[in-house]
Amino acid sequence: MEDVTNYINQIAIDCVIFGYEDRQLKVLLLKLNYKGDFYSLPSGFIYQHEDIELAAKRVVRERTGICEDINLQHFNVFGNVERQRKEFLEKLIALNYSDIENEQKSSSVYQWFTNRFITIGYYSLVNIKNVVPTLTEKDLAIDWFNINEVPELIMDYNEVLENAYQNLQANIDKSKNIFNLLPEQFTMKELLDIYETILEKKMVSTNFQKKMLDLGILERLEKKYTGAKNKAPYLYRLKK
Amino acid sequence: MEDVTNYINQIAIDCVIFGYEDRQLKVLLLKLNYKGDFYSLPSGFIYQHEDIELAAKRVVRERTGICEDINLQHFNVFGNVERQRKEFLEKLIALNYSDIENEQKSSSVYQWFTNRFITIGYYSLVNIKNVVPTLTEKDLAIDWFNINEVPELIMDYNEVLENAYQNLQANIDKSKNIFNLLPEQFTMKELLDIYETILEKKMVSTNFQKKMLDLGILERLEKKYTGAKNKAPYLYRLKK
Repeated sequence: MEDVTNYINQIAIDCVIFGYEDRQLKVLLLKLNYKGDFYSLPSGFIYQHEDIELAAKRVVRERTGICEDINLQHFNVFGNVERQRKEFLEKLIALNYSDIENEQKSSSVYQWFTNRFITIGYYSLVNIKNVVPTLTEKDLAIDWFNINEVPELIMDYNEVLENAYQNLQANIDKSKNIFNLLPEQFTMKELLDIYETILEKKMVSTNFQKKMLDLGILERLEKKYTGAKNKAPYLYRLKK
Repeated sequence: MEDVTNYINQIAIDCVIFGYEDRQLKVLLLKLNYKGDFYSLPSGFIYQHEDIELAAKRVVRERTGICEDINLQHFNVFGNVERQRKEFLEKLIALNYSDIENEQKSSSVYQWFTNRFITIGYYSLVNIKNVVPTLTEKDLAIDWFNINEVPELIMDYNEVLENAYQNLQANIDKSKNIFNLLPEQFTMKELLDIYETILEKKMVSTNFQKKMLDLGILERLEKKYTGAKNKAPYLYRLKK
């Protein structure tokens, strides 16, 4: 277990990193480097001399190896009294350190970790093609999981993830993140694919096109004359 | 200064309570009970054995006397390194306790208060006619201020307030809070008044009506036959 003396007590940061690729929405999960199937969100703490937004970026970098400057969006805080790691840590210690169990449990680091924690949630939405997650020594595996095939996570992270997903869906129109998933020039169909994937529903394409154009953020590009019959769809880009 | 030993360290709760009345948007502010003009948002801390949502409700109750069950919406966290009360507390102590200044500054409570604090922001939107703020012994005054006539606040509370206001504006369509400002049956004009006041802009009433009806949350009531020429506007209510 790590040195915790420079962290602010009782506050954690949890990051939900959504990834999009080929009409699939996924989420980046860690399998912890202990005996037992412990899956987690990328999670960490805040140094006493660190802004929380910078802490969130550092947590992503340290736990996922993603060094690209991804946009992290705060979505909620989780702060019920019963939020603590005690049950998870006891299971972990029993499985991994059964011979020195009591020694582990009396350590000050164990005490620190078993405090009640309030967690600050951030999420991001990235193009899976553009980021490269890297395994760190803390973890056995790091992988993208389809949003509908998420395993049981430690703590209350399944709820945290579900809440982040609801927030992503509810704010889809306001999020410029969507456009990070697309090339600079894109068709209305490509944009519709992303909406349908995230919202998990079919949409009527003419209505969708009208709604998108009404938002006033898209610019339609001139078609280039190719000599072929003009069947290519219009290309759009985000207004500067 | 109060006993702080049962609170979680380094985390505060700040509440921005917006009030609407007669086409005016206001915010509830406290004038602290010390020499000097110290204005503050209703603010407090979280007990070790208290859920944060309950802490937010208690803070509102204790600092504003509002006992009605108002809907508090989390909108952001503020956690830069330099967020602490030291400058404010030094000014307050110099003005109010100059004879015992050093004693004050060496107290453990003073040390606790001058820590870096991360604050969790909540806002609410209430009908001024429906809530009764009450002065508590901590404060010299409690008053509604027009959103455009907010005085200088302690700490970074002017920024916190501005951020809450932006969030209120950005989420106006998703917030059922708007309907808490209206009677059960209301005209489209009454709803438009609230939108225009919060967004601080004029809107075209026909476009507004179409947009509201497209949301699918309103139910138009039948007009009652009164015998008079039928000039009364339609009444609407929120669908059950």
